[in-house]
Amino acid sequence: MGRLTQRRRVVRVTRTEAGVATRERADVLAAEEPLELRMRGESFTVTMRTPGHDFELAAGFLVSEGILSSPEQLLGLRYCAGTDEAGNQTYNVIDADLDPALAALAVKDRRQVLTTSACGICGTTSIDAVEKALPAHQPAAQLTMSAQTLLDLPDRLREGQQLFDKTGGVHAAGLFSGEGELLCVREDVGRHNAVDKVVGRAFLDGQLPLGGTALQVSGRASFELVQKAALAGVELLSAVGAPSSLAADLAERAGITLAGFSRGRSINIYTHAHRISDVA
Amino acid sequence: MGRLTQRRRVVRVTRTEAGVATRERADVLAAEEPLELRMRGESFTVTMRTPGHDFELAAGFLVSEGILSSPEQLLGLRYCAGTDEAGNQTYNVIDADLDPALAALAVKDRRQVLTTSACGICGTTSIDAVEKALPAHQPAAQLTMSAQTLLDLPDRLREGQQLFDKTGGVHAAGLFSGEGELLCVREDVGRHNAVDKVVGRAFLDGQLPLGGTALQVSGRASFELVQKAALAGVELLSAVGAPSSLAADLAERAGITLAGFSRGRSINIYTHAHRISDVA
Repeated sequence: MGRLTQRRRVVRVTRTEAGVATRERADVLAAEEPLELRMRGESFTVTMRTPGHDFELAAGFLVSEGILSSPEQLLGLRYCAGTDEAGNQTYNVIDADLDPALAALAVKDRRQVLTTSACGICGTTSIDAVEKALPAHQPAAQLTMSAQTLLDLPDRLREGQQLFDKTGGVHAAGLFSGEGELLCVREDVGRHNAVDKVVGRAFLDGQLPLGGTALQVSGRASFELVQKAALAGVELLSAVGAPSSLAADLAERAGITLAGFSRGRSINIYTHAHRISDVA
Repeated sequence: MGRLTQRRRVVRVTRTEAGVATRERADVLAAEEPLELRMRGESFTVTMRTPGHDFELAAGFLVSEGILSSPEQLLGLRYCAGTDEAGNQTYNVIDADLDPALAALAVKDRRQVLTTSACGICGTTSIDAVEKALPAHQPAAQLTMSAQTLLDLPDRLREGQQLFDKTGGVHAAGLFSGEGELLCVREDVGRHNAVDKVVGRAFLDGQLPLGGTALQVSGRASFELVQKAALAGVELLSAVGAPSSLAADLAERAGITLAGFSRGRSINIYTHAHRISDVA
């Protein structure tokens, strides 16, 4: 797996009847490295991620931020600059070549958030401000899924996870059809990155908006994950963990079916249960 | 628990022999709301967090960013601005009154990261750049802990978690003495926030650096959590989940004992195992 994992010596401590036993052994860790995203040469953000599928991550991030919405706005992505002490390319800096007007606007917006106190998200009811960035229309109503299929998604996602098998320590996001077919799976040490990579792959393939699809994630359902799903046009978001209050609020208003605590035998549906065919 | 939780109606779907059964029931979600942090009136960052212990979160964040290191640098914290549609205070905006020179420097630094392409973290070996922000000296060597106590930390943390019992969906961070006494526990929908709240509490009490203490967290051990522990002077970081490669690298170089996959019966120690008394 090359740069995706790193081998280390660890001390393994195990409880025994007499107390504890210790032994040294090799362990495999998921790699984590910074990725800097630039827009036409200007630094835009830095994220800690598992290397791999970096162009997807960059594209998906720009979609999730509401900056990109159609493929022709993205003129190109390339690795640039960035060498280590030995002068080798680190592949940790990506430059996105956007439609110039769009890039200038995005950088200006980002600066304003940080350099004035007129921060829209904070003063008033936060959810109103954030919804401005969402698509004006609700997602397509193309998805129908049986409850059985919905309950099976975490297992199917798990089957697609290669890195988890080696490290036990990465998040994953999987895109599924209504019949439960796994369309795309991505893994990353960061929950958000895994989703951005899936969305970015679809964007680069010209498949947005993702009407008719469901997204299964390995962790919690935070507000930001619902926002990413909404901007990608995904109709259903299912999480192994708990949703937050704001995640449920946003899913309700964005027309997304939100499911959580997906534990194989049972699952909770928080919003728009009508897409699940055998739920009253 | 007031603003810490929100009650919702959910559809609960459960597998049965005949297929699936569904019923509606009430569920309690952990609250998530944005918090804007301003420095002397200028917007600095926005984080999604579980409301409560907001001053601790703000102070801990500023410590973790390497901006604050001693109590006299922080002149005050107060809720400001921010009203909802009904004109009620939202308690979602905090203004930090810092030593003016320090505040100006921090805002300038932050702007530069975002508005120039001279981003230090990305080009060269990332860990070198980040270490600049760490204390010049290694943490105090005051902590000794038995392996049994280390193995017990997740259960002790769990006992201190009030919000988790209600929602099943929040992260936690707990500060412990070498004997395993729980000194402080904080919960949040965000892993990083829980740690910032613990660090912030200690900062506000004038207890930094936290030599002689261990920090147990509920999730994974990312690079950023190790960085927060290092800046607070914590000697040992133990995680229920997996560490990333960069987390282990940084712990090694920062002199912190890093443990992961803490699952009750066993645990892995990745760095500086010498602080665990009964490990060779």
